[in-house]
Amino acid sequence: MVSHTSQFTHSVKPVPAEAVQAYDHETDVLVVGFGCAGAAVALEASGAGAAVTILERASGPGGSSALSGGEIYLGGGTPVQAACGFTDTARDMAAYLIGALGPDADEEKIHVYSEHSLEHFGWLAGQGVPFKESLWDSPTWVPPTDDGLMWMGEAAWPYNQQAAPAARGHRVQSEGFGGKVLMDRLVEAVSTRTDAEVHADTRALRLIVDEQGRACGVIARRFGTDYAYRARRGVVLTTGGFVDNEAMLAEHAPELVGSAKVSDSGDDGLGIVMAQAAGAAVRRMSTGQVGIQTIPGYMTRGIVVNGHGQRFINEDVYPGLVGIEALYRQGMNVWVVLDEEAFEDVPEEERWGLQPTHVAETVAELEKEMGLPENALQHTVAEYNRHAENAEDPWFRKSARWLRPLRAPFAAIDVRLGMAPPEGGSAGGNGAAVFTLGGLVTDTDGRVHDLDGGPIAGLYAAGRASSGLHGGGYISGTSLGPGTFFGRRAGLAAAGSATAGAEATGVQE
Amino acid sequence: MVSHTSQFTHSVKPVPAEAVQAYDHETDVLVVGFGCAGAAVALEASGAGAAVTILERASGPGGSSALSGGEIYLGGGTPVQAACGFTDTARDMAAYLIGALGPDADEEKIHVYSEHSLEHFGWLAGQGVPFKESLWDSPTWVPPTDDGLMWMGEAAWPYNQQAAPAARGHRVQSEGFGGKVLMDRLVEAVSTRTDAEVHADTRALRLIVDEQGRACGVIARRFGTDYAYRARRGVVLTTGGFVDNEAMLAEHAPELVGSAKVSDSGDDGLGIVMAQAAGAAVRRMSTGQVGIQTIPGYMTRGIVVNGHGQRFINEDVYPGLVGIEALYRQGMNVWVVLDEEAFEDVPEEERWGLQPTHVAETVAELEKEMGLPENALQHTVAEYNRHAENAEDPWFRKSARWLRPLRAPFAAIDVRLGMAPPEGGSAGGNGAAVFTLGGLVTDTDGRVHDLDGGPIAGLYAAGRASSGLHGGGYISGTSLGPGTFFGRRAGLAAAGSATAGAEATGVQE
Repeated sequence: MVSHTSQFTHSVKPVPAEAVQAYDHETDVLVVGFGCAGAAVALEASGAGAAVTILERASGPGGSSALSGGEIYLGGGTPVQAACGFTDTARDMAAYLIGALGPDADEEKIHVYSEHSLEHFGWLAGQGVPFKESLWDSPTWVPPTDDGLMWMGEAAWPYNQQAAPAARGHRVQSEGFGGKVLMDRLVEAVSTRTDAEVHADTRALRLIVDEQGRACGVIARRFGTDYAYRARRGVVLTTGGFVDNEAMLAEHAPELVGSAKVSDSGDDGLGIVMAQAAGAAVRRMSTGQVGIQTIPGYMTRGIVVNGHGQRFINEDVYPGLVGIEALYRQGMNVWVVLDEEAFEDVPEEERWGLQPTHVAETVAELEKEMGLPENALQHTVAEYNRHAENAEDPWFRKSARWLRPLRAPFAAIDVRLGMAPPEGGSAGGNGAAVFTLGGLVTDTDGRVHDLDGGPIAGLYAAGRASSGLHGGGYISGTSLGPGTFFGRRAGLAAAGSATAGAEATGVQE
Repeated sequence: MVSHTSQFTHSVKPVPAEAVQAYDHETDVLVVGFGCAGAAVALEASGAGAAVTILERASGPGGSSALSGGEIYLGGGTPVQAACGFTDTARDMAAYLIGALGPDADEEKIHVYSEHSLEHFGWLAGQGVPFKESLWDSPTWVPPTDDGLMWMGEAAWPYNQQAAPAARGHRVQSEGFGGKVLMDRLVEAVSTRTDAEVHADTRALRLIVDEQGRACGVIARRFGTDYAYRARRGVVLTTGGFVDNEAMLAEHAPELVGSAKVSDSGDDGLGIVMAQAAGAAVRRMSTGQVGIQTIPGYMTRGIVVNGHGQRFINEDVYPGLVGIEALYRQGMNVWVVLDEEAFEDVPEEERWGLQPTHVAETVAELEKEMGLPENALQHTVAEYNRHAENAEDPWFRKSARWLRPLRAPFAAIDVRLGMAPPEGGSAGGNGAAVFTLGGLVTDTDGRVHDLDGGPIAGLYAAGRASSGLHGGGYISGTSLGPGTFFGRRAGLAAAGSATAGAEATGVQE
């Protein structure tokens, strides 16, 4: 048994306000963390007339958001969708998300997010976030172009039965990963449009809670010295998830232990835990997003099998859903099997350097090299090919677009070996790269709820510190999108939550 | 988004001791819940000289323990094992549990439990719990005899590679379910050997916590009136899991929603939540035990396949592990396929009335009736039979004892249809019956830990209210066994935890 907080050098318990001798700093809305959610909080809270201070543990803004692909899941008929020829509705968007983020997705949050998606697109564009009006129409994790729209598995079965397919993966204009551009624009907006103070190198350690249980500030550490911050209207936690906290992973999401971490290395869960210590509830702590070290273009053109040579999913779903199946239900003993034609069909620049780990002239030979039971892969490929001749896949219903019999020579990619560095060797790990989806229970205004099911006065959260739209599934764009959207709502709620006497200065008792 | 506590009609937050005007009752060790863990706490705390009061929400003792099968996982060379010809060691017992309760089992708790297993057997026998010195040597959920020992999957791969196999499933002597006999004996021991007071129809609602954060009592409701109970030395929560709380399941273990519940209907998680509200940490909240509505004797003699006709496990593992795979990783789309010989080979009294849902002369016909893809089951059976001729199972390594080619006529059992009532119709649900394994973080003395990783003064837990030995797996006997064992340790720790002035009476401030 390990402690959640064994990596923290302090107690996570809230400090009673009456124990605070004097505050070092006062503001209306105190934002903890300057990733995309924190920026959205600051912009909206400031726009609503609140004084805002942002604490960021790193030396500058960005967080994990700045390292991300820059996908933002939006729909309902955005200008980008319209320019690319898609008609869309909030209803279809919500139906797809309920399916793809499920089972057990948060339907209330999904409906609110989908209904306001067009408006949120406008808000992002209004902050200077660029979206090019062009479609990237090929399966990939991140396109090598600056196209502004991509599919996120909307055309795949069974989701295409639940909602009219439309591409909704909006991409911040960028060649490659767009998170940096997104954060540059949001940071610039905060800088030019608000009076928000940013205190970098400042790590919030504990909440300050008054006698009525209201969150009224934090204790934060900067270069070894602790400072007391007072928040007259609210504290908003946008501190990210907990993938960098090994003890928390082991306690709550042990499946994620041992995978590579998708983060800026600061996702230590402290924001979640300090809120819990003040009575906050958490949910879905075992869930995670799982990227696997293979190429969606190979998967869709070939097949994906487990350690018994069995297919287990239609390979044209959003690749993150293949990853979740692979890690949570197949233990990462997962392979991509393809043929030469499929390999050649993926353009060089979309291969990310990934080469097959095994090649063979016959499936029998390949099966043996892969260490699978005899007849396992042979049967799977024979059945796949027999139906692919007719553009059918009665086993898993992959779209006819990707169905074609596989022919010699054959190749396999052991996903656990991942994308080897150019100089050779393996990327290490189990072939998966993950981040956490569980977190604080919030309502659609970002209010953090306690174990009685009601809001904790003065306490808000957004982004990966909170549990968002997700049940068991994940689609790219549902972190930055809802993170900024519910961040905005948390900012507005916090700005408007002034209590009597909140404008008074001085030490609160 | 739902509230954890939407089914509770009160706040779960702790009551400050200074708000308690007067206590209605005082004791040294206050035990909340009178199942097997609560009984063990009471016996040991009382034996150590503490005054003990037990609160039980039902009208009498028993809880979910009394409804259970009465299996207690014990080993290391118990008298029952010796009489049945088994030699065993604590080391092998621990190695098996680490494998079968994993991945991510609690090795520290497993080692402590295994090392003290012989002593714990003696303690149980000393309370009058009867164990017959005979082996039931056939796969089943619960034997139809009063034999005292059964296998719990110890001989199955890969566990037989990790630990020398020995049967360790000890059974309280009883024809059929033995939980009632266990509780009768423990309750009798509490009654005759201790001065413990038992307050039935009394449901603990909230902890009472003093200014130093020490748990010093509970508020409990009896027939509509609330009473304040003071615990001078400690409060021990043995309140069970949370399978009966739909909101908690949805938040933490959504996979378990929709299954039948294995409980006395009082496992509402309130003990867990009231401790959380006082700062306690929880872990592994998504885990559960899964019984599936089929007969282990059919599974081992036949094969188990998913909705694509694929085998996914060696069918001779402990059947609960098949259940966990079936629910968590196959979505309960699971079938047992057998032949007439296998069916006839299971004695009538071990069939629990379960009949095939589909029968056919050929596998092709059966596959079609089951709605599987063409060639799916045919391939699986052909491969299984081809190797079974040689008593081999290279795919999943089922023991040679159960390997035999399946021959016409064939039959299948749709596990979701479960065990149909004799008058026809289905048992309803998804074919699974579950309970939760996640809960409060405790150390090996039953101390409940907070989010800083240290014990909360005065607060203890045991049984399913706490997270026990389990990672992702479950073996029968690891609830009653560790529940009583760590209950004993919690009782001793609570009895010995008197603080200065603890013997004084009167209202604590």
